[in-house]
Amino acid sequence: MTRILRLAAAQMGPNQRADAREAILARMIALLEDAAARGARLVVFPELAFTTFFPRWLLEGAELDAYYEEAMPNPRVQPLFDRARALGVGFYVGYAERTPEGQRFNSAITTAPDGTILAKYRKVHLPGSVEPRAGDRFQQLEKRYFEYGDLGFPAFRGAAEWGAPVMGMLVCNDRRWPEAWRVYALQGVELMVMGYNSAAYDPNGGSTENEEIRSFHSTLAAQSNAYMNATWAVSVAKAGNEDGSGLIGGSVIVDPNGVIVAQARTLGDEVLVADIDLDLCRQGKEKMFNFAAHRRPEHYRRIVEQVGAEPP
Amino acid sequence: MTRILRLAAAQMGPNQRADAREAILARMIALLEDAAARGARLVVFPELAFTTFFPRWLLEGAELDAYYEEAMPNPRVQPLFDRARALGVGFYVGYAERTPEGQRFNSAITTAPDGTILAKYRKVHLPGSVEPRAGDRFQQLEKRYFEYGDLGFPAFRGAAEWGAPVMGMLVCNDRRWPEAWRVYALQGVELMVMGYNSAAYDPNGGSTENEEIRSFHSTLAAQSNAYMNATWAVSVAKAGNEDGSGLIGGSVIVDPNGVIVAQARTLGDEVLVADIDLDLCRQGKEKMFNFAAHRRPEHYRRIVEQVGAEPP
Repeated sequence: MTRILRLAAAQMGPNQRADAREAILARMIALLEDAAARGARLVVFPELAFTTFFPRWLLEGAELDAYYEEAMPNPRVQPLFDRARALGVGFYVGYAERTPEGQRFNSAITTAPDGTILAKYRKVHLPGSVEPRAGDRFQQLEKRYFEYGDLGFPAFRGAAEWGAPVMGMLVCNDRRWPEAWRVYALQGVELMVMGYNSAAYDPNGGSTENEEIRSFHSTLAAQSNAYMNATWAVSVAKAGNEDGSGLIGGSVIVDPNGVIVAQARTLGDEVLVADIDLDLCRQGKEKMFNFAAHRRPEHYRRIVEQVGAEPP
Repeated sequence: MTRILRLAAAQMGPNQRADAREAILARMIALLEDAAARGARLVVFPELAFTTFFPRWLLEGAELDAYYEEAMPNPRVQPLFDRARALGVGFYVGYAERTPEGQRFNSAITTAPDGTILAKYRKVHLPGSVEPRAGDRFQQLEKRYFEYGDLGFPAFRGAAEWGAPVMGMLVCNDRRWPEAWRVYALQGVELMVMGYNSAAYDPNGGSTENEEIRSFHSTLAAQSNAYMNATWAVSVAKAGNEDGSGLIGGSVIVDPNGVIVAQARTLGDEVLVADIDLDLCRQGKEKMFNFAAHRRPEHYRRIVEQVGAEPP
């Protein structure tokens, strides 16, 4: 069985609040077709790929409800699923989920080439706030619009035709949290897939971190966590000026040494393709990061026994 | 109280097995004096700074015993301590420790400008093997010569004249393990100090990772873990051709954004000096990595409940 998988990162440019769902889906299908034409069998889309990043707005009622998917797939996304199955391509996609019980999560799924859903993930590390910040034009209301993910970090097997890699999903801010990567690595993960919407600057005019340092942080997190967990990683942006607020690009495909093998050059719709050799993970997993030989969990207990920092 | 500390990384070139202790101490004192003359109040030396990296040799009896320090300080290292106190400079130094009970650890201490020992650390993540590998000229016998560190990752307060930073120590391979950094970050660490002896290539002629990728990994680990834990980091090499086996250089001082502010350019004795603003840690600790607001330890339990990887 070959262990080389050709996959794609499908970076998206911005989805404006006024964009029709049909127009967004058409762009996603075009990215999928481009990737498939170049031989990719797995395509990674961003977080909240079907909509604008609506947590930047204080919304309620029907206007807010319209951003959530009540089932996956559903008629509003079916054309993407149909086209992917016809092309024999699986995909990761992030979306806002509302359950029949009314729970709301910032979720992602990965589908197989035959259209079945292999696994679902719900974002654990929600940034932002519950209450809107007075006086700010742009909010970050993820903690208001979503519950904390309740599925943990469950690794799953990718499709047999991909080489049956052990896979893990993250969403956006999760990628900066080494705990999340490590829990997947403790399940032997070989391929991490994740999408993001990350601010390029403070949209309210503050002067904290600029676009350059924010892009550096995004890339650094992907590279280092891939290296320290001996896994491939595909980290994909929704980028550009969305609703007047800037998002970084910098989508990357990173190998288990932490080396970038493909990187986006634009802030728009852009497909990156790479052949990834899943057995490249073995060097790290068997030597430097042979967990069974080298980890000392008796000294890690603070990681689970406290939440915040407690100075000496 | 100012929170700006001028510190130094004192990278060392190789210590050959034939080098007299006096010659090595003289080099360390010269580095200390250089750093002090440039205004540094804290100097970071490498792992096993007083000797060659002796775990590369299969040794026994008195020859092996001679590599360990039975107290710290002791007459064989006293001149460094005396000079540091006279200059009003504290330091981190790595050394092989043997306790009165005969336990052996790969340890490090940090001293205050007045010469008192602020804290001791014993390396937790020991690489290498217990038994020598047949046919190999160069061994890596850390697991034979040292016990696993039994002190955990205890943060401590640096000297008041340094701004009383919360500090943490690591030794070499520990720096690649995100658990170690996180345990310190959960104690509010602002300044991580560590020394290393890291192979530049396989000294037995294997063709795994080359010097370029090994240097990249060392720097990546320092940058990313500094960023993800919102702390300054000083990571210092013993470098160059030691006993016929190559060690990487690349000593760095890294800020809490993961940005390198100083980096060694040689494989020899070399002092890097930087003014570090400890309050630069606050941005990360209060926002992106506000642990109390964003961590979800209920999903991290595998980190302490299993040692090795368990694929799904």
